[in-house]
Amino acid sequence: MNETSQIFSKYLADKEISRIFSDEALIKKILAFEIALAKEQAYLDIIPKTASEEISSLLSSIVVDPRELADGTRQHGVPVVPLLELVKSKIAANKAKFIHYGATSQDAMDTALALMLKDATKIISEKLALVISNLKRLTLKYGNTPCMARTRGQLAMPTLFQHKIIAWLEPLQRQSDRLKYVEDSALKIQLGGAVGDLAFYKEKGDSLRKAVAAALDLHLSPSWHSQRDGLSELTNWMAITSGVLGKMGADILVMAQTEVGELVENAEGGGKSSVMPHKNNPVLSEALVALAKLNSGLHSIQLNSLVHTNERDAAAWILEWKCIPQIVGNTAAGLNHALTISEKIKVNTENMKRNVDLFKKSNKQ
Amino acid sequence: MNETSQIFSKYLADKEISRIFSDEALIKKILAFEIALAKEQAYLDIIPKTASEEISSLLSSIVVDPRELADGTRQHGVPVVPLLELVKSKIAANKAKFIHYGATSQDAMDTALALMLKDATKIISEKLALVISNLKRLTLKYGNTPCMARTRGQLAMPTLFQHKIIAWLEPLQRQSDRLKYVEDSALKIQLGGAVGDLAFYKEKGDSLRKAVAAALDLHLSPSWHSQRDGLSELTNWMAITSGVLGKMGADILVMAQTEVGELVENAEGGGKSSVMPHKNNPVLSEALVALAKLNSGLHSIQLNSLVHTNERDAAAWILEWKCIPQIVGNTAAGLNHALTISEKIKVNTENMKRNVDLFKKSNKQ
Amino acid sequence: MNETSQIFSKYLADKEISRIFSDEALIKKILAFEIALAKEQAYLDIIPKTASEEISSLLSSIVVDPRELADGTRQHGVPVVPLLELVKSKIAANKAKFIHYGATSQDAMDTALALMLKDATKIISEKLALVISNLKRLTLKYGNTPCMARTRGQLAMPTLFQHKIIAWLEPLQRQSDRLKYVEDSALKIQLGGAVGDLAFYKEKGDSLRKAVAAALDLHLSPSWHSQRDGLSELTNWMAITSGVLGKMGADILVMAQTEVGELVENAEGGGKSSVMPHKNNPVLSEALVALAKLNSGLHSIQLNSLVHTNERDAAAWILEWKCIPQIVGNTAAGLNHALTISEKIKVNTENMKRNVDLFKKSNKQ
Amino acid sequence: MNETSQIFSKYLADKEISRIFSDEALIKKILAFEIALAKEQAYLDIIPKTASEEISSLLSSIVVDPRELADGTRQHGVPVVPLLELVKSKIAANKAKFIHYGATSQDAMDTALALMLKDATKIISEKLALVISNLKRLTLKYGNTPCMARTRGQLAMPTLFQHKIIAWLEPLQRQSDRLKYVEDSALKIQLGGAVGDLAFYKEKGDSLRKAVAAALDLHLSPSWHSQRDGLSELTNWMAITSGVLGKMGADILVMAQTEVGELVENAEGGGKSSVMPHKNNPVLSEALVALAKLNSGLHSIQLNSLVHTNERDAAAWILEWKCIPQIVGNTAAGLNHALTISEKIKVNTENMKRNVDLFKKSNKQ
Repeated sequence: MNETSQIFSKYLADKEISRIFSDEALIKKILAFEIALAKEQAYLDIIPKTASEEISSLLSSIVVDPRELADGTRQHGVPVVPLLELVKSKIAANKAKFIHYGATSQDAMDTALALMLKDATKIISEKLALVISNLKRLTLKYGNTPCMARTRGQLAMPTLFQHKIIAWLEPLQRQSDRLKYVEDSALKIQLGGAVGDLAFYKEKGDSLRKAVAAALDLHLSPSWHSQRDGLSELTNWMAITSGVLGKMGADILVMAQTEVGELVENAEGGGKSSVMPHKNNPVLSEALVALAKLNSGLHSIQLNSLVHTNERDAAAWILEWKCIPQIVGNTAAGLNHALTISEKIKVNTENMKRNVDLFKKSNKQ
Repeated sequence: MNETSQIFSKYLADKEISRIFSDEALIKKILAFEIALAKEQAYLDIIPKTASEEISSLLSSIVVDPRELADGTRQHGVPVVPLLELVKSKIAANKAKFIHYGATSQDAMDTALALMLKDATKIISEKLALVISNLKRLTLKYGNTPCMARTRGQLAMPTLFQHKIIAWLEPLQRQSDRLKYVEDSALKIQLGGAVGDLAFYKEKGDSLRKAVAAALDLHLSPSWHSQRDGLSELTNWMAITSGVLGKMGADILVMAQTEVGELVENAEGGGKSSVMPHKNNPVLSEALVALAKLNSGLHSIQLNSLVHTNERDAAAWILEWKCIPQIVGNTAAGLNHALTISEKIKVNTENMKRNVDLFKKSNKQ
Repeated sequence: MNETSQIFSKYLADKEISRIFSDEALIKKILAFEIALAKEQAYLDIIPKTASEEISSLLSSIVVDPRELADGTRQHGVPVVPLLELVKSKIAANKAKFIHYGATSQDAMDTALALMLKDATKIISEKLALVISNLKRLTLKYGNTPCMARTRGQLAMPTLFQHKIIAWLEPLQRQSDRLKYVEDSALKIQLGGAVGDLAFYKEKGDSLRKAVAAALDLHLSPSWHSQRDGLSELTNWMAITSGVLGKMGADILVMAQTEVGELVENAEGGGKSSVMPHKNNPVLSEALVALAKLNSGLHSIQLNSLVHTNERDAAAWILEWKCIPQIVGNTAAGLNHALTISEKIKVNTENMKRNVDLFKKSNKQ
Repeated sequence: MNETSQIFSKYLADKEISRIFSDEALIKKILAFEIALAKEQAYLDIIPKTASEEISSLLSSIVVDPRELADGTRQHGVPVVPLLELVKSKIAANKAKFIHYGATSQDAMDTALALMLKDATKIISEKLALVISNLKRLTLKYGNTPCMARTRGQLAMPTLFQHKIIAWLEPLQRQSDRLKYVEDSALKIQLGGAVGDLAFYKEKGDSLRKAVAAALDLHLSPSWHSQRDGLSELTNWMAITSGVLGKMGADILVMAQTEVGELVENAEGGGKSSVMPHKNNPVLSEALVALAKLNSGLHSIQLNSLVHTNERDAAAWILEWKCIPQIVGNTAAGLNHALTISEKIKVNTENMKRNVDLFKKSNKQ
């Protein structure tokens, strides 16, 4: 599910996020779901304890080569089917039949996604906290420096540098508050059975769902097979976060222009040109702007997944598989760059003063 | 085919929402901001009471022809400038100078938008409550009818019709809960002065902002000139709501197909063809799907407004002016259609049974 | 803030284009199709000449209030049905039955759209030619002025101003060449009858289609009811044109920054601020950037109309009705602003030289 | 630049296209540019022949581990810089200085992209020809089968099956014709030097560009560093192709519904469910619809790259790196599925007849 160029892995992606959405991680999370399902089913006397134990033992230790799932995924439209075929073949049929017992492939796939997103939001949340903390420190150090506000591309009025930082910081603080909220929307157990109504498990369905949710430390939720609002809540959070970081990038690009000279993105030296040795390119800020645009477009695709027709609709579902890992990776990449910038930025207070003077002089004329 | 087309005003728009975002309403809301500003400034001894009274009197009664603002809007890039020029010309210069005193055009424009959105979300919220109530009633009446679940376009397993309705209802209930939350994010006073730092009003700035917010019944907020996350929270809410309604439309389109025959969108008769008199077209459900796609795309444009560079950036700001009224109008149009459908839908329980039988028969073979 | 807002009619729209896609124009174009259809049907002895004459006479003179079509459009999902009901009621039933004879509403609607687009592309093409001509003149006058190239936001190397203009001009020249090509794709007769196969007219179908195409001066084409590639070719042309103009706007925004000072968008005075009288805001360039973003998003929605399911699918079709007029209007608005800029731009050759000197000096250090 | 999940490599990607945009291929294409540049520079006496020979020898044989470029790409914002640093370190300084002589990183990067796209369009074009050929054969075999046309989700009128196939075939034939045209727009040499004006090479610049274009078999073109219309022409072609295939997929999904029963996507057996053994899921058609939506969104992001500010703007450029490989891969994946479907589709002429009868019967009533 991820995009994994090594070349761009540190510039336009985040290695941890790429790992979270890797083939290996997807397989592991699907198996984690199946293990928890079997365990709780045994506890609730839905399947025999011996079967559960053998299933746990097998699924905890099996190593699956993702390439073995490619044909089956194309054939069946979802990796769960070939993965289950493969693992079931490793165990006696009278045990194998209790793997994935009464569940549907979407239960496994969606729960795996929720588990991956849980890992991802933890990382995102930590990165965000660090950026917020750095920006606060920057405000303390440089906040009272006079500098020019610019409106519609023109010098407007003198202000303090803190007002520029605050325009990055306040929305990020709000995003930090909102994250808890969207996690509640998205990090939910999926267990509905064939068509989402838990009919297979009869009166034990609700208890089973509750138990599996607890085992996997996910929020309890009714089946959301064809109710995808929670995921779009989360991806919108990512898109807004990227947009706020894009504004930070765009501001820095202006203040780092040679003629403006108020900021250097990275005091330790930014991007060089292959042909112009004098360049100090604010390449992280450029990436912030690009990542914002990418996530605004990808979230739009993701929103189309809400029109999830009938009880299961892969024409909608696939959009999530392709977009969500990218959206999360772009968000993390942006936070990484914001972190670097907020640590290494060079504030040229003299040039800030020079531009204030330029403004005052030109307005006296 | 334009946005305020009369022809499409009931099919692809909502008349009340169109009125809320009309030229006349925009002018009125801008003037409401200016009146409140002058009143509270007088109360706080920032401007003379006599000026405030004359300003109130003028701005409450003046009728402005929107066409008079077209040249000025093109010239200055924002309607507030020509509108203020016009109203200032109607009053003595020593009073006129206290109109919009210390404020910037974005204060007036953004606050006007917040006021329009407040009117709009009230209507949206009422429509949503009615749809939810209708869907609950539908569940009570038809919920226990057996019908086929369909996954990936194929008959899957028998279920109850309530599970289909629940897939429309539950996300709408969540959206209803979330609306309060996004209203808090978006319906906020904007008062920052020239570059957002309230510098003009010195120590009285905070009190003034609080007073104007109270007078206009908007949430208090620091300046958000270049912090646009709240608006994208709200438009995402709209896009998700439209997406959920699009899923409802898509489901109905399937169940209303001639071969499936389980639902008729409108028992009182749907769309006719110009050439095929036998047709009963589910034209509202089609619109629901289309409106979902429209809002997923428009919200994506809106997200780009987050990259609001410097202290004011119309290249970002304009996106909101063009997208927000459409997004809200599309949402309301969708709710209208959902309301009609949920009132007038005909549930053909016999055909639901027939399709269950078809499934049972074909699976016995 | 609505699409046909008078306030924004000169800044974010084009009056001629708005008129071309107005309710009145849509009605007129639908009727033009019906008149041509009746005339050619009479000529080919499909309907009686007397019916054709009476139909022509009625449809050429009738004035329809768009508001009368709103309920019917909502009811039937397409304005052609209520419009035909209305006009048929004005004429004897034995003549009325020959109106729209054998055609379907999509024939009328799509042909009307093609006719509107033909009017629109003529205007767009003229505006584009003028912009190209102005930019060439600008190259002649200022092309040899030394100025700084900027890469990744930094001063890069001295170059000539002509290279900046060429980056606007060359793509526009290519767009001019391409327009003919996309017009061929989009300005096509639609005549297919109920389900697109012309079955109703038997062996006369092809001759009739040819005759109606000739009468309306549209390209001949097989039915394209569910083949929408031509329209997306055209809207992509619009989106690319807007993107190129957005690049021109973005370049000007940089060169017009106070600190850079190389260009003034409008030598006769640009946008003023409501509170900062010293401002000269490049508000047209900002609009160019915003219009580019709008059209990139709107074209994306339009592309979804390609998934036009079955023989007619309003869930796809509606997207065109909502997006195409806006896309064309945005393109025209951008061309208008490019025209103004290319006529009234002030090139500050001294500041260009100053920045070259700044670069040389800083690189000697 | 690509997304390379093994699991989804056959369902939502194309292996050949993934390879074309792999890290290894990007490095190879950049080096191919540098080799051709050195050779032609030697021929034109811009650099010594001995240097050229040594450069060719080194760059043809060197194997670069993509992971070695990750830090440098993050540092400099483009992989060309660290790649050149690495290769230059392998050769004497007096030769190394003639690598990439007078060129800029964007020359290498854009030319590499053009070369990759050339490989890709060749494959895409072949796949497209096969799909077209299959659809023609399908028309010959089943074209005259009566079946129902469906408009707005309802049975409309009987027609022939060929009209459904034609709605897939004709747009693909037009796309085939258009491909040559967009290849001319996109498969172009990039050689402009530091800021695009070829100034470094003085009077030899044009000859050098012509020679390098010929050596790499790319179209000749002026510098297009900041003129990105050609690429968006090509990605729009991909998005339209995917859209047309999406319509084919959507049609099949309807005709393959259990209740309709007219088509089986894959006569050899389609997707199975993990829990419902009776299912025969049309998973390739679902992918076709999803891929269409993905490409409509990705092309929208790509269009934003047109606003390429100044002489180089990575905030725009990055969008191409992230979107183009995906857009092309999605297009190829769609063509693969269309190929499979058009070979293995099962046409159930009896059920087509049954639905025609259903229609006739219900319309007699």
